[in-house]
Amino acid sequence: MTTRAAAEALDRYDPLAERLSAFDRPPGIYLDGHSLGPPTKAARARIARASEEWARGLVGAWNAAAEDYGWIDLPARAGGRIARLLGAAPEEVAVADSVSVDLFKLAGALLRPGRALAVVEGEFPTDGYVLAGLAGLTGAPLLRLAPGAPAGGRGIGVLVRSLVDYRSAAVADMAAEERAAAAADVSIVWDLSHATGLLALDLPRDGARYAVGCGYKYLGGGPGAPAFLFVRSDAAGALANPVAGWFGHAAPFDFAGDYAPAAGARRFLAGTPPVLSLSALDAALELFDGIATSAIEAKAQALCGIFRGRLADAGVNAEEVAGRRGGHVAVRRADGGAIVSALIERGVQGDFRPPDLMRFGFSPLFLKHVDAFDAAEALVDVVRTGAHRAPRHRVRRRVT
Amino acid sequence: MTTRAAAEALDRYDPLAERLSAFDRPPGIYLDGHSLGPPTKAARARIARASEEWARGLVGAWNAAAEDYGWIDLPARAGGRIARLLGAAPEEVAVADSVSVDLFKLAGALLRPGRALAVVEGEFPTDGYVLAGLAGLTGAPLLRLAPGAPAGGRGIGVLVRSLVDYRSAAVADMAAEERAAAAADVSIVWDLSHATGLLALDLPRDGARYAVGCGYKYLGGGPGAPAFLFVRSDAAGALANPVAGWFGHAAPFDFAGDYAPAAGARRFLAGTPPVLSLSALDAALELFDGIATSAIEAKAQALCGIFRGRLADAGVNAEEVAGRRGGHVAVRRADGGAIVSALIERGVQGDFRPPDLMRFGFSPLFLKHVDAFDAAEALVDVVRTGAHRAPRHRVRRRVT
Repeated sequence: MTTRAAAEALDRYDPLAERLSAFDRPPGIYLDGHSLGPPTKAARARIARASEEWARGLVGAWNAAAEDYGWIDLPARAGGRIARLLGAAPEEVAVADSVSVDLFKLAGALLRPGRALAVVEGEFPTDGYVLAGLAGLTGAPLLRLAPGAPAGGRGIGVLVRSLVDYRSAAVADMAAEERAAAAADVSIVWDLSHATGLLALDLPRDGARYAVGCGYKYLGGGPGAPAFLFVRSDAAGALANPVAGWFGHAAPFDFAGDYAPAAGARRFLAGTPPVLSLSALDAALELFDGIATSAIEAKAQALCGIFRGRLADAGVNAEEVAGRRGGHVAVRRADGGAIVSALIERGVQGDFRPPDLMRFGFSPLFLKHVDAFDAAEALVDVVRTGAHRAPRHRVRRRVT
Repeated sequence: MTTRAAAEALDRYDPLAERLSAFDRPPGIYLDGHSLGPPTKAARARIARASEEWARGLVGAWNAAAEDYGWIDLPARAGGRIARLLGAAPEEVAVADSVSVDLFKLAGALLRPGRALAVVEGEFPTDGYVLAGLAGLTGAPLLRLAPGAPAGGRGIGVLVRSLVDYRSAAVADMAAEERAAAAADVSIVWDLSHATGLLALDLPRDGARYAVGCGYKYLGGGPGAPAFLFVRSDAAGALANPVAGWFGHAAPFDFAGDYAPAAGARRFLAGTPPVLSLSALDAALELFDGIATSAIEAKAQALCGIFRGRLADAGVNAEEVAGRRGGHVAVRRADGGAIVSALIERGVQGDFRPPDLMRFGFSPLFLKHVDAFDAAEALVDVVRTGAHRAPRHRVRRRVT
């Protein structure tokens, strides 16, 4: 039996509770942090500061001293902060462009003649679009693997895998997949969009070599925040960024006629980064300073557990996930769109994907355990009273 | 003889004078708007508003009503504003990514088997990096044309050309080059970075089919503002964006497994755009509402003319440019780095490219005619007094 009192007790002893004050808490219970994280006060202050830097520093702000957030250093600076969350070294991570563009760059760099690009059926659609576009440009074959099918023995050169399934929140076994991929000479590019800032990742331990991820979900970098890419140090030197731009040049200010790649992941930078958005991301990442990712994952599991438990007690079943889970809970119901709409009316913000998938995200740094309980209670009440059957609760679609 | 009184008279009758009040005027005389334009008050207000939208609207702000700047519409909305400055239709322009990424996408879409990619020697280096990266990925040959050499008869499929030379400010003859390119079956992608928001462009009249350009120079979108691309309506339908992402999908919210491109230039969108930076650009573009681009170009020529004239009167010669010119004036001197440094000390901000190139940008919307005169006077005084020979005036390098 899951009770509110038990959730309150967890809040009293929550080692991450002090981080709650880093946010202007959104009204209601915001369970869409797996789509767009809310801002910290620090992120909002940096947006105002970046605006001021533009007005006062003008072009000189690019090369301002590091303590003044010289813009030129922001991709590496934010990348270093993300690296810690991946168990990676700072030079292994760069912040640049969007997940789509970063995935294109990495997959393009890893492509080998005669080898195929591969995605897994049902994983995040845009990753498939990106590989299809790359296949169309280069003539490489594109394979769509069935979930769970082995990648070896099919001529695959590059496989894109989501670490956390965006629907069920199931977590792939990175270490096992990397072992199999290494044996089959397949390069996996991990999409860590639903994993970074949430799971206790250790990419080197698990043998991962390449990854991309988004800045605006659990990392809280703001709408459309720049993405990141990870390239293991021993692999970077052999790779050529196919979208070569001056920010990835070894000496960007020489304006040399020939391209010479920078060291490490930085060679995967391309054009001039969007400084306002990048500044917000850099400041948002301060939230993670001094926190072990294991504590974040543990709290996410507790929040999800409370939510699932209260639902189960009332006879509403969340989708079962075997093994390790991400930070959201999926509930499938044919009337899910109407239920999410009715919940929004009660201040509980989740999301819905047609035809039947409700998703409730439990970002551990701005939610309390009682929020998870109260959200479940609201869902149970909507279903019990049939409040969602009112005509105004039409299906809504939301941005990921 | 160029006099300050003449400059004052031009200011009195300047049809664009009322736009000066749109800015918090930067201190001193800022002649680096061809690198990073200063913010309008409207752009800074929108940054603050976008920060608030994030905090209050959260994920719901993506689909807010248009009058509330629903984020999902921003790429098309900003694109439509830029379209007017190009003489183009709104659906022919999309705002996305950086110039490097946009150039890669367009050149990749235009590539044909067995045909070469080409750049012109000495044009903006990063455009050459991008084509070299694309050539490396696809196996297409890369040619470097000598300036003025014809593109026909060499097996070239795609040629990238700067409309305004980033060093001399010379303007290419777009109509003549497009006629020659059409006859030789060459696709030109114009880099309009130093032209948009400055020259009276009419791409359809001049036969241009493809272009990219940057958002942070004369358009004033802020540091690293998203770039734009132009595809003529009759050409878009046949092109496949090689960096296919969900924002370029015909139905992005369906999350379909297969990619179906959107209509017009919008098919060249890729991943989620950086909303904070994009919001600033959208608001910055309001500055151009109701102004004819011919008036902007005319004032730029007047400002450059005053600057060049006052220098010439004092025996300091700017680089000669035959024909139409862009918005900056180049002055080559071996001691140029020291002169630019000494001018910055006097509040006149220009830029310097080793070994000998000084550039002074005359953005017509935030500068007065007397600013051009006073800047020239400061330069003349530095040279006359030898103030730049003080040891502190070391060579500086600046971001473009």
